[in-house]
Amino acid sequence: MLHLDLSPAQSFLAPGYHDQCKDKLAQAHQWLQTATGLGNDFVGWVHLPVEYDKEEFARIQAAAKKIQAQSKALVVIGIGGSYLGARAVIEVLKSPNYNALPKDTPDIYFAGNGLSSDALQEIVTMIGDRDFSVNIISKSGTTTEPAVAFRVFKDMLEKKYGKDGARERIYATTDAARGALKGLADKEGYEEFVVPDDVGGRFSVLTAVGLLPIAVAGIDIEALMAGAAAQRQECIDQPDASASAQYAAARHALFESGKSVEILAGFEPSFRFFGEWWKQLFGESEGKEGKGLFPASVDFTADLHSMGQYIQQGQRLMLETVVRFEKPLTEVAIPNDPDNVDGLNFLTGKTLSYVNEQAIRGTRLAHVDGGVPNIVITLPRRDEDSIGRLIYFFEYACGLSGHLLGVNPFDQPGVEAYKKNMFALLGKPGYEDQKAALEARLK
Amino acid sequence: MLHLDLSPAQSFLAPGYHDQCKDKLAQAHQWLQTATGLGNDFVGWVHLPVEYDKEEFARIQAAAKKIQAQSKALVVIGIGGSYLGARAVIEVLKSPNYNALPKDTPDIYFAGNGLSSDALQEIVTMIGDRDFSVNIISKSGTTTEPAVAFRVFKDMLEKKYGKDGARERIYATTDAARGALKGLADKEGYEEFVVPDDVGGRFSVLTAVGLLPIAVAGIDIEALMAGAAAQRQECIDQPDASASAQYAAARHALFESGKSVEILAGFEPSFRFFGEWWKQLFGESEGKEGKGLFPASVDFTADLHSMGQYIQQGQRLMLETVVRFEKPLTEVAIPNDPDNVDGLNFLTGKTLSYVNEQAIRGTRLAHVDGGVPNIVITLPRRDEDSIGRLIYFFEYACGLSGHLLGVNPFDQPGVEAYKKNMFALLGKPGYEDQKAALEARLK
Repeated sequence: MLHLDLSPAQSFLAPGYHDQCKDKLAQAHQWLQTATGLGNDFVGWVHLPVEYDKEEFARIQAAAKKIQAQSKALVVIGIGGSYLGARAVIEVLKSPNYNALPKDTPDIYFAGNGLSSDALQEIVTMIGDRDFSVNIISKSGTTTEPAVAFRVFKDMLEKKYGKDGARERIYATTDAARGALKGLADKEGYEEFVVPDDVGGRFSVLTAVGLLPIAVAGIDIEALMAGAAAQRQECIDQPDASASAQYAAARHALFESGKSVEILAGFEPSFRFFGEWWKQLFGESEGKEGKGLFPASVDFTADLHSMGQYIQQGQRLMLETVVRFEKPLTEVAIPNDPDNVDGLNFLTGKTLSYVNEQAIRGTRLAHVDGGVPNIVITLPRRDEDSIGRLIYFFEYACGLSGHLLGVNPFDQPGVEAYKKNMFALLGKPGYEDQKAALEARLK
Repeated sequence: MLHLDLSPAQSFLAPGYHDQCKDKLAQAHQWLQTATGLGNDFVGWVHLPVEYDKEEFARIQAAAKKIQAQSKALVVIGIGGSYLGARAVIEVLKSPNYNALPKDTPDIYFAGNGLSSDALQEIVTMIGDRDFSVNIISKSGTTTEPAVAFRVFKDMLEKKYGKDGARERIYATTDAARGALKGLADKEGYEEFVVPDDVGGRFSVLTAVGLLPIAVAGIDIEALMAGAAAQRQECIDQPDASASAQYAAARHALFESGKSVEILAGFEPSFRFFGEWWKQLFGESEGKEGKGLFPASVDFTADLHSMGQYIQQGQRLMLETVVRFEKPLTEVAIPNDPDNVDGLNFLTGKTLSYVNEQAIRGTRLAHVDGGVPNIVITLPRRDEDSIGRLIYFFEYACGLSGHLLGVNPFDQPGVEAYKKNMFALLGKPGYEDQKAALEARLK
């Protein structure tokens, strides 16, 4: 179960704020459920947790087993929504130290999500002479970052295993019908998985985009989908009172009342990268037309000793959304110190998670006292069911919230701006006219 | 050389903004140089790059050699400024994959910077049965997070090596004269290094706090100090026109004109954690009395596919400070594809760093067009000299900027709030009275 607690935000919310947006919420819910409204061609994620392609799902599980048997490393090539979801889920359910920890599943390297030659070269070095496979994730096959990385790793595979051996180790997650990567995969006979037409990148973690790398890491993707499905059912059953609807209404009201930054806070380092996924989800969905909460994330208690001062006493811009897990995966008891040098013997024998929990509670009170509305999301533990629920909870809240804001939550028109400039500066055919003008501005 | 380019922020700045704060800048400069003004008992970092303790510096280098010879892993226990600087420098000069890459220096694990039992247990697992040493960094020795972790790892060392063996492997960076850890280190005979009284945590990376772990990673700390010293000289020589003074004046003017978020952007994944150090530096120095730019950081081009949409078209809250390196450590040439599947053959034979550079230039133009003032800091490459300069550049700018804002840049009164609540909820002796009241509020 996912539990939402709005009480530590209550004193910052005007009475009746939820009722005031009830009609808009009902409308947004209707739009999402029936694929009407703004961005209606990108709401395939809404029913995905139950209406997914079962045949492909079984192929994903089989491919994951094959990769596990055949390779010591998997290179996942993708950018934005094509890697954030998988990396977030693997880190939160396994660990940010997944590669370094003992395990019987392959190491996973995320490549093609930037243009750093040092970062690319390091992955080549870390793979070394071990057996590896590649999952290239790109709807078009022409996005610069993943395309360049794919050239490099495809070359490596073909040199190591020959062309026939390489095609047995390349998995293409791409468009079902068209595009450069689809064409290549058909021609070469790569195993193919689909980036659905009606699911945008930032909502794609529960498609093959996220599921194949997640399954390779040994995570139970059926349980993950079941968690998401349960959360979807809540959204359907309680259009106005689901956790997603409540969260959407509260954060929208706080935005309207003048808050401009939302901080997602976790108290487990394994949750850090989930914050990156969340920032894309909300930032890209709402950050348009001069609107939207600026999304930021922190890793407590570490960041209480860095960002804590600002949150407590800086500009009063922020609301804070906290995700906590009731139980850790392992308990550590605090050892006794006969000399009690640090004065902490009052904690002897207590578990570290008990101390962490009091830090969560103490921080909530401190931040509310400091003028920062808190919203607390509680999950039982870091397992597939909880994370499936959390993903869907945020996705549905984001769809609702974007509609409350009056924007199309499913487009990203601003992402093209840097790309166009970059192509022109690189001298890409077709962009010649712009190059001189841009170079002149850069002088 | 560190080069600052304010031209892509110019159109957002009122004419004469720099002249208008000249007197205040001169005053702030004077305060920093002569240890007068607000927070004057915490400006030891100003002259540190030249006036550091040479004897201790040599001991740091010797201790690093001893750790390298004796151990396969070093556990660095510290929170906030006691780990962010070391981790940032090791990641940017070595790699975020430092532990996973082939090398002849020990793995480094950062512990005691949070209260997650899973994270702590993972470090124990990753050390396994390898030889290891511990560097405990705590001014007082009583801060909960590092103190608990120190109990755990001290126990491990004593079980593995006996009490005598353990004391040969524990390095205590702590107060010179007093405190719980100082007392223990004296009694046990640990090698000791000093957290100076006049250097706050967030300014301590160039003291033993940061230097010992950095040296263990094989980084040339003399070159790092020399870079910082060169930057300090520029600040002294050009009180009003140093890069730090210019940056402080520009970001202050942008803050005054209504900007409320500053984003630090890098184009190398190895720079990601430097952003965390920077967020503490500025957030903790300026975020008080309801003031200060909210500090955020991004890792481009990856985050152009997540936060890029918001930056381009969301609320116009932001200024962006970009750090770029002219040369990567390794060059990767883009392979040819005879079939030109991805249409990128116009890049064949070009280096990836050339493409990255055009992304940097294209992004700058796009964001300025989108209404986001850009400030660009250029360094030759990811080496000790550059990073030493960059650290001092930001530190001095932060000192100036805090004074322009009219706050004490060197205190952090808000950090205590969560701790006090946590102690009360944990039932710490002396906090009994508050516990019941806090529990009642949490019901």
